Amino acid sequence: MHIRNYREIQPEPTGVEGLTVRWGITASQGATNFSMRLLELEPLKSTPMHQHDSEHEIFVLVGRGEVVTEGAVYPIRDGSIIYVAPNEIHQFRNTGASILRMVDAVMFPSRIVK
Amino acid sequence: MHIRNYREIQPEPTGVEGLTVRWGITASQGATNFSMRLLELEPLKSTPMHQHDSEHEIFVLVGRGEVVTEGAVYPIRDGSIIYVAPNEIHQFRNTGASILRMVDAVMFPSRIVK
Repeated sequence: MHIRNYREIQPEPTGVEGLTVRWGITASQGATNFSMRLLELEPLKSTPMHQHDSEHEIFVLVGRGEVVTEGAVYPIRDGSIIYVAPNEIHQFRNTGASILRMVDAVMFPSRIVK
Repeated sequence: MHIRNYREIQPEPTGVEGLTVRWGITASQGATNFSMRLLELEPLKSTPMHQHDSEHEIFVLVGRGEVVTEGAVYPIRDGSIIYVAPNEIHQFRNTGASILRMVDAVMFPSRIVK
């Protein structure tokens, strides 16, 4: 058992301007399969279009934005549940005036089946 | 890519009085490793003490409650991030006057390594 409030966890830079991460559950808390983290994207900032081996399973806590794929743009807001498949090209955009805060679960690289 | 708002997903009974589940991401949305769901526990209701092969990785959206293990009681509230290890005996209690709503990620049984 490991319990913390996300507010106690320091946000860390991600290398993407305007995007920070708070690592909630990782191997340090005993996890062996997947991580749970908070992503926080500042107003009017976006991630690059990118892809990776792990799926995203996301719950949007607050904010308004979009998820962009190669063929579509999907609006997201508080309460949105987002599944991004492994290796699907995607971008997150904060289109609102306040932070876009999301709970994001991702597989450990060592547990990804290719 | 699959996106829905949790408010569009019907809550289903779980067999535990006062506890419902909204399945956000499952195999039906294309997931292959783990699920993301909403657990909603009514005021003053509790789950039984129980255990299962999958870990829980939980983010508390709203409400106040406790997680109980064999040796301890941990308060939880909005913003709490909870890791329950595989096969750890645990109970969730809503000690507040409003719903306890939690995002919960759990491994697919087929992907659990024993």
